[in-house]
Amino acid sequence: MRIFIYFLPLIFSTVVYAQTTTYERDSVMLRKIHDQALVNGKSYSWLEHLTTQIGNRLSGSAGAEKAVVYTKEELEKLGLDKVFLQEVMVPKWIRGIKEYAYIETESGNTIVTNILALGGSTSTPVGGLKAGIVEVQDFEDLEKLGREKIEGKIVFYNKPMEPRHIQTFTAYGGCSHIRYSGAKEAAKYGAVGVIVRSLTHSLDDYPHTGVMSYGDLPMDKYIPAAAISTKGAEMLSSMLKLQPKLKFYFNQTSYMMPDVLSHNVVGEIKGSQYPDQYIVVGGHLDSWDVGQGAHDDGAGCVQAMEVLRIFKDLNYQPKHTIRVVLFMNEENGTKGGLKYKEEVDRKKENHIFALESDAGGFSPRGFSFTSSKEDFERIEQWKSLFKPYLIHYFEPGWSGVDIGPLKKDGIVLAGLHPDSQRYFDYHHAESDTFDKVNKRELELGAAAMASMIYMIDQWGTIQHPVE
Amino acid sequence: MRIFIYFLPLIFSTVVYAQTTTYERDSVMLRKIHDQALVNGKSYSWLEHLTTQIGNRLSGSAGAEKAVVYTKEELEKLGLDKVFLQEVMVPKWIRGIKEYAYIETESGNTIVTNILALGGSTSTPVGGLKAGIVEVQDFEDLEKLGREKIEGKIVFYNKPMEPRHIQTFTAYGGCSHIRYSGAKEAAKYGAVGVIVRSLTHSLDDYPHTGVMSYGDLPMDKYIPAAAISTKGAEMLSSMLKLQPKLKFYFNQTSYMMPDVLSHNVVGEIKGSQYPDQYIVVGGHLDSWDVGQGAHDDGAGCVQAMEVLRIFKDLNYQPKHTIRVVLFMNEENGTKGGLKYKEEVDRKKENHIFALESDAGGFSPRGFSFTSSKEDFERIEQWKSLFKPYLIHYFEPGWSGVDIGPLKKDGIVLAGLHPDSQRYFDYHHAESDTFDKVNKRELELGAAAMASMIYMIDQWGTIQHPVE
Repeated sequence: MRIFIYFLPLIFSTVVYAQTTTYERDSVMLRKIHDQALVNGKSYSWLEHLTTQIGNRLSGSAGAEKAVVYTKEELEKLGLDKVFLQEVMVPKWIRGIKEYAYIETESGNTIVTNILALGGSTSTPVGGLKAGIVEVQDFEDLEKLGREKIEGKIVFYNKPMEPRHIQTFTAYGGCSHIRYSGAKEAAKYGAVGVIVRSLTHSLDDYPHTGVMSYGDLPMDKYIPAAAISTKGAEMLSSMLKLQPKLKFYFNQTSYMMPDVLSHNVVGEIKGSQYPDQYIVVGGHLDSWDVGQGAHDDGAGCVQAMEVLRIFKDLNYQPKHTIRVVLFMNEENGTKGGLKYKEEVDRKKENHIFALESDAGGFSPRGFSFTSSKEDFERIEQWKSLFKPYLIHYFEPGWSGVDIGPLKKDGIVLAGLHPDSQRYFDYHHAESDTFDKVNKRELELGAAAMASMIYMIDQWGTIQHPVE
Repeated sequence: MRIFIYFLPLIFSTVVYAQTTTYERDSVMLRKIHDQALVNGKSYSWLEHLTTQIGNRLSGSAGAEKAVVYTKEELEKLGLDKVFLQEVMVPKWIRGIKEYAYIETESGNTIVTNILALGGSTSTPVGGLKAGIVEVQDFEDLEKLGREKIEGKIVFYNKPMEPRHIQTFTAYGGCSHIRYSGAKEAAKYGAVGVIVRSLTHSLDDYPHTGVMSYGDLPMDKYIPAAAISTKGAEMLSSMLKLQPKLKFYFNQTSYMMPDVLSHNVVGEIKGSQYPDQYIVVGGHLDSWDVGQGAHDDGAGCVQAMEVLRIFKDLNYQPKHTIRVVLFMNEENGTKGGLKYKEEVDRKKENHIFALESDAGGFSPRGFSFTSSKEDFERIEQWKSLFKPYLIHYFEPGWSGVDIGPLKKDGIVLAGLHPDSQRYFDYHHAESDTFDKVNKRELELGAAAMASMIYMIDQWGTIQHPVE
């Protein structure tokens, strides 16, 4: 009896869905989408070009502009109804010459260690900065220590990412405020610089950069901030226990320039039934200025492009207008996402759904949704269609930075949810390169996205159902 | 209303389970198991030693024997109730000197290509074998071609693994008979050698070896068989279209030796309530003789060891006797699995459950079960407990080669089901090395296994329920 009750769900949900829809038609279409992605997939070769031929793509860099040109050209080859650029002013931060850092023991020996300036950080004084170092975990430790123990020192934030969380993004969320605001907070106590343990579970030699901000700190109070690799952080911490008066030296020549012109890249297939209702699928074209921006977020861009490629090659004529948007400047400003929203408002374009892929090109497990409860529950009824592809993790949650500005009542936002275990091994580091991306995992992610976009196109949303 | 019906399952299954069990206790235990694996995990450092210090471990090799000694010592450190070796005679196949192969064009130019002798293959004639080559996909093509077109030639099996299957093991299953029996079948038509396209979706330069058999062919009819990399296969196939009379040369000096003595490694914690009922968790200690046998199956061994380590460190006293078994000779004989079963029968040990990890140390997604329908449906009721760890893929299916001989009415066999996309990139190739294993993915697999073993220990099976 227990068993009978247990099996009710599958029977019922299928029956109900089948009664009200053409379940088989959708099921066949998802199979075709997956076959297209796995047999004729373009995403992997696009990614190879974007990462190995163009390389990293920080906003305002030559790489970013090459990526705009390249992806626009590739979208034009697909025979979409429209491909265009959206002008957007973006911040331009320059890393300068390669950073240099060492630990100086109490007896004067030096041990070189790997660092990377945090994105947005100011430079050290000319010739570098050498000072005593004080280790803390988080901001509350600054208050405990007080100005007396911090002034004139370099603050070393050494909070490891929590290993217990199953989803690594949760652990990242527990530490990212330190990278973002660590310099601002330490400066308030008179610190002269900040060294932040890299945000990764991996114990290795790669420093991981990422955006930081001085917030409302006056410019003359800015202090330089850099990430140290996790192995470097472990060594520094061990040495500090033995030699609390050791010194840390680092030199970086990073600086902000005035904003420069860049672009979002947009391509669209016009809807046959609801041309004025828009469905967006996207990723961000910019990356940090180290490695190749392969998982973050070259993968998301080529997957979003692949969704439209699949529809074209399947001769699928969508009911709604479907847009791929490659956003510029997710990493340090979200100017592309904000600009896109500005244009949506200006043109009064009605957006019903947006899906972003910005969690790496790993094996997809499903989606997280930012939506009304009713919309989520409606989408949940499609789960059994997605299960054969093992992409039936459907949970309320985070969607994406770039589509975030589109949020309003009635719109459904979603994020592709790949397996998250390896993401922070490569995130914002030299190691985020093409060879870390598995072809099939990337392709399956694109197929998952195309499947969800197809279902939304067929059924619409609560506020905008397909009649 | 549809939504209400849709949500019935979750409500019901939880209620029923909660009514009949202490759901919260089990839930807390699964959390503790995961914390242990992720915070104090030993599996990754064991694997590092097994792969980088010992290396590959073909049955009968020095590496295999070192692995027996090492894992026995490590199990002894855990303070188990018993650790012992089981003697087992295993085949000993020797690869000999490094293979050498080239394509010779019709005009006499040569292009060197990568091959690996298949495990169990005989050598080429002294000085190597050069012959014309005929390309086929599968055995039915041999019949179509007939003896006339095959006699005196090398048969080149060039059947790619099907990319459409979501689970890569399904695609492997569609091709592995060619590697296993390709030489035997081709020899019937007078072929002088066999070259088999490597069993991987990846397009790269690594040949992938694996077991083959001559079946009932008389020994004087044996012909040498080797795997060619997928890139090599593509090149050879292209060239054959242009130059059907090109020749292929290969030299290999592989041969079989008489069987030698080796061992299964067994460790156990005595059960408090049902000491005579056994639960087994295992992997296989042998590997192929290339790479480091990291995913296949160093990962499975250290995960199985980790299950008992976790129970010891949590001071968990199992109700049943829980055994870790590291099987010898999965790759080319299953002698370890057969020997274990022989001992079980001889000692009349009652086995109620066995779980094997032999699908790589990738992010776990759940389990497949070989069991009665009733046992499967009972276990399915635990799904919601496993969902927070994203390991709730529970499906009937394959369990494992080594535990296969234990199969009989009433016993439940299970296989850990990790994400399968990358497995065949490394399978039986030089590239199956420690650096391909992600620490957290490996640890989460061990935690998934410990969770399932715990649940079986708490609840038993249909034939052997815990009272």
